[in-house]
Amino acid sequence: MAFGGGHGLHASLSALRLLVDELVVDELTAVVTVADNGGSSGRLRGEFGVLPPGDLRMALAALCGRNEWGVTWSRVLQHRFAGDGEMNGHVIGNLLIVGLWELLGDHVDALDYVGRLLGATGRVLPMATVPMDIAADVRGLVPDDPDALLSVRGQVEVATTDGVIDSVVLVPPDPPAAPQALEAVAAADWVVLGPGSWFTSVIPHLLVPQLRQALVDTDARVVVVLNLSAEAGETPGFGPADHFAVLLQHAPDLQVHTVLVDTGAADEPDQLEELRHVVDAHGARLLVADVAEAPGTPRHDAVKLAAAYARILGGEAP
Amino acid sequence: MAFGGGHGLHASLSALRLLVDELVVDELTAVVTVADNGGSSGRLRGEFGVLPPGDLRMALAALCGRNEWGVTWSRVLQHRFAGDGEMNGHVIGNLLIVGLWELLGDHVDALDYVGRLLGATGRVLPMATVPMDIAADVRGLVPDDPDALLSVRGQVEVATTDGVIDSVVLVPPDPPAAPQALEAVAAADWVVLGPGSWFTSVIPHLLVPQLRQALVDTDARVVVVLNLSAEAGETPGFGPADHFAVLLQHAPDLQVHTVLVDTGAADEPDQLEELRHVVDAHGARLLVADVAEAPGTPRHDAVKLAAAYARILGGEAP
Repeated sequence: MAFGGGHGLHASLSALRLLVDELVVDELTAVVTVADNGGSSGRLRGEFGVLPPGDLRMALAALCGRNEWGVTWSRVLQHRFAGDGEMNGHVIGNLLIVGLWELLGDHVDALDYVGRLLGATGRVLPMATVPMDIAADVRGLVPDDPDALLSVRGQVEVATTDGVIDSVVLVPPDPPAAPQALEAVAAADWVVLGPGSWFTSVIPHLLVPQLRQALVDTDARVVVVLNLSAEAGETPGFGPADHFAVLLQHAPDLQVHTVLVDTGAADEPDQLEELRHVVDAHGARLLVADVAEAPGTPRHDAVKLAAAYARILGGEAP
Repeated sequence: MAFGGGHGLHASLSALRLLVDELVVDELTAVVTVADNGGSSGRLRGEFGVLPPGDLRMALAALCGRNEWGVTWSRVLQHRFAGDGEMNGHVIGNLLIVGLWELLGDHVDALDYVGRLLGATGRVLPMATVPMDIAADVRGLVPDDPDALLSVRGQVEVATTDGVIDSVVLVPPDPPAAPQALEAVAAADWVVLGPGSWFTSVIPHLLVPQLRQALVDTDARVVVVLNLSAEAGETPGFGPADHFAVLLQHAPDLQVHTVLVDTGAADEPDQLEELRHVVDAHGARLLVADVAEAPGTPRHDAVKLAAAYARILGGEAP
């Protein structure tokens, strides 16, 4: 199963679904952050008090059936209204998901319905059953005191802060996890964390107490997929080792089995050495593989990522 | 095939689909007015310049598959957002249809897609491929001159006018008909006009020049289903004979085969006599049948209406 949000999770799911097609993976479950407060999702959340549907919709679209029916409905769900009126910026799939929630009264039933519509390979679950905010302790926002920590609240605000994020928490701090997500973690063979916006899409899963405990308790092996580069706003100046370290800092009990990093990290030997050191110290193994769309881009290539996942899941020594 | 719009067409289709289930009818096509300028449809039309989707959506919902899948998606399409924000009043199916139009670039393809989603019994087509307005010549709006005709434009404005409607026209006057609707008329065995808002949902079909000509030229027998009562706004004080007469006034070349009226009309022998006279003069036959949900309600009962249709289509002498 895969944990994340946004475009990073979309890439990871696009890769994992290829492994389902090839029978390397027999069941696929995505667990998605529900802390978004921007764009169409943020507007719907503000208007109806519902979970932000956008990342859930994107994950479902990534898993759509590969026939004309599935692909067309996936495009419909992803379609964003243009124009200059009240619908501008709204995404059809978001509206559909919110409507299903209102009608069926159950988050997971509604997402399963959309999955059936798409002929989806796998299931998409929210990480929690209530909307929440991400709040970050951020350094460097006070001109006279560069070490002072200020609290910044909101996914958009955190993702675009000018300061350096020290840590993140959820508000409320103990949202109830989706029971189906807890069951899936307990039953999983492999869990993939990342890639994605590190503080606002990946780490939040580890901040839901029941979900973190499930990840600590499970027999599944945990794979962390590092981002291809630092992200302005969230992780400026972060090297691969920093990404891994800050993730562990938010879940000290978590045992990671494999860390996957792009070969681009090997271009800077110091950074790779530092990462290897941190990963060794944690007791995990490191896989360096070519998983970028092109050198220097921040996007993972689904086919390359699938090949790397196959190596990890197949147990081949990295 | 059935022509109309709004709740009247919904009732007629709900009846006709029962005849498909019973193999009395082997193919069902609905042709829907696209002149609505109010509510969710009106907002979308104003924002995107598209056909008003509401009556099309309602017709599709009436034809939904009778299993859990079809019924649930039909309810989703019909779901209207409440709340007090920008989405208030919008209907999910309308948004979905507009999105499909933007994405697929073809009105009929998009409606066929929604039909497949619903497992619909039959097909839903727009009467024309451009949005239009209804304009009415209305009497009684000028205090000093009760016979003066004023022009009132817009479906909502016409449907709620305080005056008495003399006649209606389309603006523009010659919208292109949907080619699939023309083909369906040419191939049909039976055509049902009404029930529904007389001047804004039923008669407009006869004002699309290509469609009127197709209805005049077809070998199909034309059935006119009269409303159960006069409608405040559109047809105050109209008896059944007035309804039929004003329809013919808008399409003098149309040959009607059967006129269906509820037994409630027989409660007022003068009105029934007048209707019989007008229908005889036209050369049509009259069927008086119990088709109301309950005496005095303005709504047709789908099962009773289906029984009446079966008598008409079966050729039984009324």
